[in-house]
Parts: sequence; C-alpha cells; structure tokens
Amino acid sequence: MKPYQSMSVRVDGEGVWILDQTRLPHEELWLRCASTPDLVRFIRELKVRGAPLIGVSAALQLGWRSGNGASADELENEMAALREARPTAVNLMNAVDRMKRAMRERGPAALVREAEDICSEDAALCERMAMNGAQLVEKDDRLLTHCNTGGLATAGTGTALGVIVEAARQRKDPHVYVDETRPLLQGARLTTWELARHGIPHTLICDNMAASLMQAGKVDKVFVGADRIATNGDFANKIGTYGLAALCKFHGLPFYVVAPRTTIDRDCASGSDIPIEERGAQEVLRDWGKADTPVWNPAFDVTPADLVSAWVLDTGVFTRDDVRNGALVGG
Amino acid sequence: MKPYQSMSVRVDGEGVWILDQTRLPHEELWLRCASTPDLVRFIRELKVRGAPLIGVSAALQLGWRSGNGASADELENEMAALREARPTAVNLMNAVDRMKRAMRERGPAALVREAEDICSEDAALCERMAMNGAQLVEKDDRLLTHCNTGGLATAGTGTALGVIVEAARQRKDPHVYVDETRPLLQGARLTTWELARHGIPHTLICDNMAASLMQAGKVDKVFVGADRIATNGDFANKIGTYGLAALCKFHGLPFYVVAPRTTIDRDCASGSDIPIEERGAQEVLRDWGKADTPVWNPAFDVTPADLVSAWVLDTGVFTRDDVRNGALVGG
Repeated sequence: MKPYQSMSVRVDGEGVWILDQTRLPHEELWLRCASTPDLVRFIRELKVRGAPLIGVSAALQLGWRSGNGASADELENEMAALREARPTAVNLMNAVDRMKRAMRERGPAALVREAEDICSEDAALCERMAMNGAQLVEKDDRLLTHCNTGGLATAGTGTALGVIVEAARQRKDPHVYVDETRPLLQGARLTTWELARHGIPHTLICDNMAASLMQAGKVDKVFVGADRIATNGDFANKIGTYGLAALCKFHGLPFYVVAPRTTIDRDCASGSDIPIEERGAQEVLRDWGKADTPVWNPAFDVTPADLVSAWVLDTGVFTRDDVRNGALVGG
Repeated sequence: MKPYQSMSVRVDGEGVWILDQTRLPHEELWLRCASTPDLVRFIRELKVRGAPLIGVSAALQLGWRSGNGASADELENEMAALREARPTAVNLMNAVDRMKRAMRERGPAALVREAEDICSEDAALCERMAMNGAQLVEKDDRLLTHCNTGGLATAGTGTALGVIVEAARQRKDPHVYVDETRPLLQGARLTTWELARHGIPHTLICDNMAASLMQAGKVDKVFVGADRIATNGDFANKIGTYGLAALCKFHGLPFYVVAPRTTIDRDCASGSDIPIEERGAQEVLRDWGKADTPVWNPAFDVTPADLVSAWVLDTGVFTRDDVRNGALVGG
C-alpha cells in the first residue's frame, strides 16, 4: 500500500497509524494498529473519531491487511467487527460495505486501491464542501461551531470546520466561537488546536454560554457537521447540536449543517430511524462526580429538518424547499 | 455569639467555619475563617457560594468579629471588603448593608443579634419559598434544575432545590434532572450530593443534553434560582439559565424562578442594569485546554421576564401579569 498521511491518520510500511485524539492538545501521540481489533478498540475509545475519519481509517486498515496477505475469510470477519465499532455514524458502515463489495467483485487484492480511493475521495469531498459553504460566510462573520469537524475528523480539511478554514483562506476574517462540547470536549481539545494551527481567531466557551452569546448579538451563523442525515433532512450529530439549532431558531440565526453526500442514509426516512449511541457514565462523571450518580449520556441528538437553514453538501447548498422536494433522496 | 450550624456554615467558639464546596462530593472539609480576609478569599474562590449563603456567611463573620472585640473602624473596613467579594449576587450587598445600618444605629454589639436574625430569617424564607413552589409540582413530575440552589446555597433548605425537596417530602415523587453546570460543575458536584442525601431520584446530564431531554418529552418543568432580580422581572442567575429559559419557551414548558424577595434589587429597573461577573479562563480550560486558548467565561446570564412562567418568592407565586403590574417594585 502507498504511504499516506493526513492530519490524523497515516500508513507506512509498518501499518496504519492513528493520532490519539484523546491525548490532544497536550501530546501528539501516534498509535499503530498492530491488528484490526486494535483499530476497533481505538474507535470505541474515541482515540480515532469523526464520522468520515472513522470510515477512512477502517478502509485503510482493511487495505493494509489485504496488501499484507490477509485471507478473504479474515477480511470478512474484520469487516464485521469494524462495521459495529460505533452505531451512529453511517460513514463507517458505508466505507466497510464498499470495501466488502470491492472484495466480492474483484477479490481481496482490490482492497488496496479501494482504500486509496476512499481517502482521496474524502479529501476531495472536503474541498467541495468548503468551497460551497464558504459562499455562506460574509466578511467578519462571527461563527459558532460545535464538536470537531476538521482535519481531525476527516481525511481532508473537514466538514463544518473545513468551511470556516476556507472562509479564512478567502480572507473573510471570521471569528470562531467554539463550544467545548461536553462530555468529551472535542471543541475544547481538538477544534481550538486546529484553529490555532490555522491561525484563525477563536474563543472557547462552555456549551451553556452559546445562548447568552446569541442574546448579546455576538453570533452571526452556526455551522455544524453531521454523523447521519435522513432523506427528509433530519440529522444526527454530536449531543448539543439540537439545542443550538433550537436556539438559532429562537434568535433568528442561520443554522447550517455541512456533510458529504455519503452521510445521507437512504434507509432513514426521518431522524426517528437513526439509532443513538448511549455511552457510559464515567465520561460525564470524570474525577468530580460520585461513581454511583445516575447519568444520561447520549453521544448524539437528532435535529429536525425544519430547524436547518441549509444543507451544505459536496454537491451543492440545499435549502429547506430543495430538501422538501427530495434533494436528499436521489443517488 | 450562639453556636450555629447549617448544612454548609457553622459558628462555634473558634469562629465561623464554612464547608469547602470545591471539595465536594468527595471530601467534607470545614475551613475556619481565622480572619475576615479569609472569608473574602473563600468567597472569591467559591469555597463558599450560593447567593443567600454568601450573605449569611458575611453576616456571621461580622457578628463573630464584633462579639470578639473588633472595633467599629475594623468592622467598617471588613464590611467594605466583604461587600466587594463578588459583584453579581445582591444578597451579599444587602446583608452587609443591613449589618452596617445596625452598627451605625445601635453600635458594634448589635451585630451579633443582627447576624443571628439574618440566618434565621434566611431559613424561614426557604421554608416559605418551598411551600409556595411545591404547589406548582404535580405527582411524578420530571423536573430539571441548574447549578446548586439547596442547603449548600442558603442557610435553609434552599430556593429552587428547596421547592423540589419539599415536593418530595409531600410525596409527589419528582424525578430530578440535574445540569452539570459548567464550568464549575455545581450541579454535578453539589446538587447530586444533596439529592442523594435526601434520597430523591435524580439523573445527571451535561448542560448540552437538556434540549434533547425536552425534545424527547422527558421534562415537565424547570426550576432555577436567581442571584439578582430586577423590578421588571428580568433576573441574573448562573450561566446557562437563559439558554434553559429559551429552550423552555421553544418547547412550551413552564420555567420557574425561585428566590427570596431580598434578591430583588430596587435599583435595577431591568436586567441590563445587572453587572455580570466575568471569571478567569482556567475555570474553563482546566487540565484539558491549552493555557493560551482565548476563553469567554461569564459567571451569570440574564433571563428576560417574558421567558419566566412565574416568580416563586417567599411572599407568594407571581405571574407575568403580576410582575407587569409592579409586584416586584414595592417593599
């Protein structure tokens, strides 16, 4: 397999490596996937995260395994394990299913090329989303974003954060408010780290401060990513997204979701069809809560289509009317 | 001065002691105020917190000092320092001003009795708020609350949490959802600790999960406290309160504020007159953020009166119409 390097995943002669996102921003630690169960564990433990990047990582691992002599039976088993590593993001299932089809149609050797294609396509999708979304950003806009949707979540520049980075590249000088994104703090740990690397001015806030910022007239637009989009435009994204969407509606602010077309799940007619992963109490309790405190910890929520101002996909910007007219249904 | 003991402050022959709320729920550590600057520091560091309790603590410290030979000049200086320990809660200023009047009218010796009166009055206020507010709770209600407004915030059973505790005492069997309340986690650390002590069923959530709970129909009512109420009904409370109020409006849910009448500031005609304390970045960054990340960290926000379903005071339950007709203006 050809050497490959993105912000947070790489492939070399020793195998697939992932940047341990649980150690950022303090330490840049690369972990080798010595076996596919390693990657499954890294995905479960959120060492590698971000809906597109999980799919890319799975494809690269399967490509590397096929290039290093794994049998079709072994690969089938590994595909099944990877596909179930996390339940909400559709990209992982899509990437694994695509690898599976390639193997069945063209044999295990086809997986190397297929993985390389998935990576380069993901980067190209990011480019197109960024160009489409940057049109929605005006000079000096104050943007709010949630979770991490950048180069740490994709093989390219990202989804929502990719739009912001492109707007900055176009000298629109956005200021970015970053939700810390409890419980796992992807905003506080990852998005601020990326924005600092890009030299884009930003301010970190706690999730519960976003409403107050909006009330003060300090937010012009909100951009978020998506883990899965139903064909009616409802979408699942990191917990806290729905609250932001409701607050945007309440304050009359535009609310944009940015995702590749591959995030649409044709099998989900509406958000109620999207399974929501619930995670353990310890993520919330950390070192300050008592271990026996009951906790509700859903990893995602579902935002209904009528709170979305536009869907920014790689194939274009779609309005609510477009979506009502079936823009997300076709191939 | 007579020995005194509430959930989180006590007075004995050695002086005034406060329960260090920054160590809860893991450790119950009592700190002695060896001098008034100690208490000022404990207030600034949030070791003692909660708008009513801060006022009670200041009064007790001044009472103890006067009972142990402090001069009028010393007491005047200590009053000035205490009054400025935190800028948003009006109770602290009210308590200190009341002590100052007592001293000017009746001499330093009057401070002992005045402090004892402030304590017993605060506990009595809690009782009356609890009785008034519990009428709004129906059997099996699912209640959401923010921050800590219980026995750790007052000399009695609390404000919003006092209502909930009284409703449970009346066998209305409420289930309480507790916002963790970033950045200082008063919900996660203090409210869950109090609810567990009272044996009231509860579930901890991250602040950004409240919207999703409401969307799922799992919240019947929201009860919060207040640090300062303007005469038009706008009020300041812990950051995150305004967002909850907006989300209640969006979801058609009742939103109640519970506070003693002493929380009303006759000098504030509206919320825009209330100064909002901004605190340091480190509270948000903790050990996971990079120290040079820009942070916005307001300790409070202001909820406009038109988002409040009713004001639960010790003197009764007041509707929006009552408040529009001047219910908060009189003495």
